[in-house]
Parts: sequence; C-alpha cells; structure tokens
Amino acid sequence: MPHIDSARLLADLRQLATFGAYKTGVHRPSLSPQDMEARRFVMKRFEEAGLTPEIDGIGSVFGWSKVDGTRLLTGSHIESQNHAGWLDGALGVIYGLEAARAFAADPRTAGIAIDVAAWFDEEGHFGSFPGSRSGVGLLSDSDMAAMRNRYDGTLLTEKLAEVGLAGKKRVVIDGKRYRGYCEAHIEQGDVLEAEHLKIGVVTAIVGNWQYRLVFKGVQNHAGTTRMAIRRDAGVALTELCHQIHQRFPALSGERTVWTTGRITLEPGAASIIPGGAEMLFQIRDTDPEVLKRLDAELRRLVEEANRAGPCTAEIEILSQSTPARMDETLQAALEASAERHAPGKHIRIPSGAGHDAQYLARIMPSSMLFIPSIGGISHHWTENTSDEDIVLGCQVYVDGLARMAGV
Amino acid sequence: MPHIDSARLLADLRQLATFGAYKTGVHRPSLSPQDMEARRFVMKRFEEAGLTPEIDGIGSVFGWSKVDGTRLLTGSHIESQNHAGWLDGALGVIYGLEAARAFAADPRTAGIAIDVAAWFDEEGHFGSFPGSRSGVGLLSDSDMAAMRNRYDGTLLTEKLAEVGLAGKKRVVIDGKRYRGYCEAHIEQGDVLEAEHLKIGVVTAIVGNWQYRLVFKGVQNHAGTTRMAIRRDAGVALTELCHQIHQRFPALSGERTVWTTGRITLEPGAASIIPGGAEMLFQIRDTDPEVLKRLDAELRRLVEEANRAGPCTAEIEILSQSTPARMDETLQAALEASAERHAPGKHIRIPSGAGHDAQYLARIMPSSMLFIPSIGGISHHWTENTSDEDIVLGCQVYVDGLARMAGV
Repeated sequence: MPHIDSARLLADLRQLATFGAYKTGVHRPSLSPQDMEARRFVMKRFEEAGLTPEIDGIGSVFGWSKVDGTRLLTGSHIESQNHAGWLDGALGVIYGLEAARAFAADPRTAGIAIDVAAWFDEEGHFGSFPGSRSGVGLLSDSDMAAMRNRYDGTLLTEKLAEVGLAGKKRVVIDGKRYRGYCEAHIEQGDVLEAEHLKIGVVTAIVGNWQYRLVFKGVQNHAGTTRMAIRRDAGVALTELCHQIHQRFPALSGERTVWTTGRITLEPGAASIIPGGAEMLFQIRDTDPEVLKRLDAELRRLVEEANRAGPCTAEIEILSQSTPARMDETLQAALEASAERHAPGKHIRIPSGAGHDAQYLARIMPSSMLFIPSIGGISHHWTENTSDEDIVLGCQVYVDGLARMAGV
Repeated sequence: MPHIDSARLLADLRQLATFGAYKTGVHRPSLSPQDMEARRFVMKRFEEAGLTPEIDGIGSVFGWSKVDGTRLLTGSHIESQNHAGWLDGALGVIYGLEAARAFAADPRTAGIAIDVAAWFDEEGHFGSFPGSRSGVGLLSDSDMAAMRNRYDGTLLTEKLAEVGLAGKKRVVIDGKRYRGYCEAHIEQGDVLEAEHLKIGVVTAIVGNWQYRLVFKGVQNHAGTTRMAIRRDAGVALTELCHQIHQRFPALSGERTVWTTGRITLEPGAASIIPGGAEMLFQIRDTDPEVLKRLDAELRRLVEEANRAGPCTAEIEILSQSTPARMDETLQAALEASAERHAPGKHIRIPSGAGHDAQYLARIMPSSMLFIPSIGGISHHWTENTSDEDIVLGCQVYVDGLARMAGV
C-alpha cells in the first residue's frame, strides 16, 4: 500500500490557499490573477512529482504520468466561489498530486499511472462545468464561444486570450485508456460530522433542475394605486415562494433540496409597485422520479397562480442535469479502504452538489470520496476540515486508488 | 376671473417634456444635464412672464412676483423619476406659471402676487423632499451635507458644485407673507378616471412609514445542505411577505396601501442558500391610528417569526412622515371653482403620494388639486392625461387661486 506524506500534503494545501487568500478562505475566481498563479503553482508541483504539466485551451491543468501501466485519473478543480473556502476543489487536486507521489515512491505501485486534472471553472464563473465538459468532449467550440463571465459579461474566449491561452488545443480524454476516475472533495454538508463519520463513499451525484421564474404585473405608484387594482409582480413572486414552501415537503424524497437563490423586483424602488419580478429556483435529487414530480408540482402551482391572477408567471428551464450513478466496483474499492483506515466510520452517501465526476462518469467508471466539513459549511470563507480528517481522507483515497488498480 | 391660454399652457408643457424625452415620457433625474436644461427653460419662462427668476443653493427654482399685494405661492417640481411621466411635477409648475400670466393679464387680479416654485428633487434622487424641506427651513446644512445620490452615491453638495450652485444661499420662505400655497398634480391613481370625474380636491396627504427589514440566516451550499438544518434568510423574508399579505387587509383603512418595493438576497447566486436578505417596505395612510396599528402588526409578525426561527429579522425605520391635513378654506375655494367649471365632476380625495405641499403645510395654509391620470398610471413613461383634462384642470386651478385671494 502506498503511503502518503501528511506534512507535504498539508503544506501544499496551505500554500495553494495563499493565492487569493481571503480571511481564512480564498477568493479565486476563474482566470483571475490569483487563479492563474494557483494554476502555475499546481503545474510546478506536478513537474516536481515527475508528471508532465499542461494547461489546455480552456484553462484546465493536467499532470500526465510518464508511466505506461494501468491508468487512473484523479482530480477536481482549483478556482473558488467568491470569498469561499480553501478546500473546495483544491483538496481533490492535491489528493491526486499526493497519490501520484505516493504511488511513484512505492515499488508495488510505481508502475501504475496516476494522471491528475484540475478541471477549469467547476464553480461556474463562466458556465456550467466548462472544464470537465470540454475534457469529455461534450463542449463544442460554439458552446464555448457563447460563455460569458456571470458577473461582468466578459467573453470566456477573450479572457482566455488575455491570459495567453488563445488558440491552444483543448484536451479531450480517451475514457478507454483508464481504469476509472476518482475525485475527492469536502462533503459540503453536515452528515459525516453529525454522525461522527470520517469518510463518505458517494453513490450518485444529484440531478440539478434549475429554473428562472419571470413574473409580470403592472408598475405603478406605491402611494396612489389602491390595493384592489394592483398587479404587484413582487407579491405574485413571494406568494409562489410560500406555496412552494407549503407543498414541496410532502412530495420530496429524503434528501431532496430546493432553493430560491436570487430574487429581483423591477424597478426595485421603495415607492414603486414592482411591474416585474424574477427568481432563480432549483431542485436537486438523485432520483429522476422525484425531480419529475416536483417539476410537475412547480408547474401546477404556477398555472394555479396564473389562473387566479392578477399577474402572470412564466417558467424558463436553465438546466436539467441527469443524476449520475457512481461505479459500483470503484465504490467497493473506496469502501474497503475506508473500512481498513477508519473502521465503522464511513457511509455511502449521495452528493447533493454537482461535481466534475458527473461528466467523467459519461466516459469512464467514476467515483467520489467525501471527507467531513466542519459545521457542514461550504461556499463561504469559514469552510474548514480538521487536519486529522484531511490526512485520514487522503490515506483512504490513495489506498482506494491502489485497490482500483488491483494492487 | 382670470382666463388661461390653453395653447400656451400645452405648448409649455410639451416643450418642458423635450428635456430628457424618453419614449412618450421623460428621464430627468435631479441635476442631470437634462434637468438643468429644464430648470433654465422654466427660469426663462418666469422672466418672460414678468417674474424675477432665481435658482437657489439647493437647486430649487423660483419665479418671484414683482407685485406687492396679497401673495399666493404655487408650484411643484420638475425633475422626474427614472424613465417616468411627462406631467408628474411639471404640471404643477407650469400651472403656477400660467396662473401668474393669467392673473397679470386680468385687471381684477393684476394686483395679486403669484409666486411660483419648482422645489428641488421631490422625487428623492438625493433625499426625502430636500427642496421643500429646505424652503420651509427644515433642512439643516448638516442634513444636506449627508445627502447622496441613491444610485451612484455622489454627494449632493458635490453635484451642486458641479452645476455651479456651490455656496449659493438657500431660499427660506416666510409663510406669514402668504395667503396660502396651492399645488396642482396628476392624481397618479385611478379614482377620478374610474368615477368619471375631472377634479380632485385633496383633503390630506398620507403619512408614509418606510422600513428596511434585514433577515439573517446562514449562507451555505444549496446542494449539500439538508432542508432540515437550513437557515435560509430568503425563505424567512418571503414567509414574512406572505404573513403581511394575509394579515394587513383586516387591519387597514379604506385606502391604506402597503408595498414591498425591493428584495435582495445575499449573495444572490443560484446555488447558494441566502445567508442574508433585505426588503424595503412601506405603509401609507392619512390616519395616524391606522399607521400605528399596522406598524404594531408588522412588529408582532417579525417577533413571531424570530421566536419560531431559524432566522432572525430586524426592523429599521427609514422614515415616518406625519399625515398632512390640507386647509379647509383653500379646499372650499378649489371646490367652488371646480363646481363652476366641472359641475358634479369633482371629489374630495386624500393623496396617497407624498408631495411638497406636505412641507409647505407646516408654514402656511396649503392645498392641492388633482386632475385625472389615464389608467391610473404613474412613475412610468406611459403616464398621461388628456389635453382636455389638463386645460380644464388649469382653469379650475386659476379660478380657485382667485377665490383664495378673495377676488
């Protein structure tokens, strides 16, 4: 069994967290100067580990093993959400790096090729999983040409040109060359912590159905327009939110989640009755049937509200991802490793968040391993995991990879 | 009775609407180049009408009568809300101008002084009624120094310096010199139109109690955080909106209105559970008791929500204006005039909107006259009133002023 170097692992994670450091977390949006520094740092470490470093035409960073044996693909991402945590994504890339180093140092595994990928922009500053979709051949040039920064509207292609990646070819992975893909990640939830567990072996990644709801009413003066004749789009929106809050629990599965992440009233002034309103809404579950049932209920509530008036609402689908099952054999390998290093302290668990592994699962057997998140906090700079759990998780991960490779 | 010149009245209104023309309305924020052009145009017309034009240190524009008899003050404002209507404010200023011209042309009224004011920023781009508050001596230098543009944060004093008004003295009106104040305005509601009436004699201007409600929850990942442990500030906000929607109708008066004009979720991203949320909320009524009752209910609902959890909400008061009664004698003068020119087609009506008249009422008997708004539409570029109603309203207004002056 290959052994990890805990001090080296933690030092690399800590150094990666210096790029865009924000309080105890990081602010490292895709292709920001801090993100580019982080990419260069990771490539340097890949090279030092004996891997061939590469950054491709969409900004994904790879470390290619020079070994010509059984191949495993590892990785995650290194950019962050705004003002978010230091481990989200970074952990999976540094685990992959540590696996490559540990495998190379152990004669029993030195003949196994560990490739490492840092998929571009998993956090979606420019689009939905552009790096891993590109890596599995599911992102066309025209898809890519249309991607824009969600905050400032800059074209992804312009931004790539700015950082010197214009015209570079994009890597497309040949799934057949690999035994499988394994991605480690913080849980981003509280199940492991609440149940005093150390390892989650992911069974499936949820499907995420995302909607924009647009409400139309009539803009008018908030002082002079009697309540009886108002068509207040904001009231229509908040009443729909209330209906969802009332009706969804009875129709959902055990771990279904739904979220209204953004609400906008138009024009958004204190003394003007909103003539328009918008909300971003999403539903996640690993069971397609649950997603369909809640989608139908959402449509029913909107139709009911439209019939009752006085405003109208329209549903626009932004994305409807398919839940992705993780490979059973790879799950068994991770579980056996977890049982060895943390007996009785592991669980099979679905992933409520989307991950690059959901796209890798389209081209090869794929798997994910979770370690605990303190307080279940994620996408916030206070996100954290104890050093002990980080080290234990990495040993389980590396041993699990060895088992996948048949060692 | 002084007679108005309909063609001149309409031509001046139309010309004023060319400054910042937007579709069929105007976009003329306070101190914008278009607004300054409009102020210069109005001063030119004042001068042509034999009035002494003046712009003071806060941007209010005045036309002072040179006559030394009974004095009446008229006016309204000329800046607009963003992309709003051509008559809101402008109508009352041009009515005042037309009154001054009609009074001067008629030997029976030529000895009566009609002063005209265009109060600065009634629409509140920089603050709450800065012009009329300054004009009645209720705006201190330090109040004024703190005022900032609500969109871009520019200091009012900086903006005034930019347009050449730095260091100019601010006019403070001596209420004792005047028989009274009269402000004409579009109704901005649908009562006159719905009841086929032509004139509204305003009984009182509503009090407007404005609040910011701030909700605190815990920001987290929208995919991984189970519903049971969420503290979603957005849900807390929309549920409070629903409670208000349920409870307020039974506690309100006949013409009470309440509005949520803006909602913001923090950080406002599709996949992040809002850790914070804010709403701007207001309640308007002419009866202080109704305002107090609804204020108490709002506080009760917030306390109830805070006790139930899982989020907390806080109420911040932004303003609590006192309802302003209009003078009975001046109302009677306007009503007598309305009965002469539009027999049976007038009504006594409260003003749901705030107006400069509510501040003038602090220092002299004050009155307001409404003319119909087509479709009740206001604060939108489609706001309009028929030429016929504009002309009729002006004749009622001018005759009403003559009656106030005892002619």
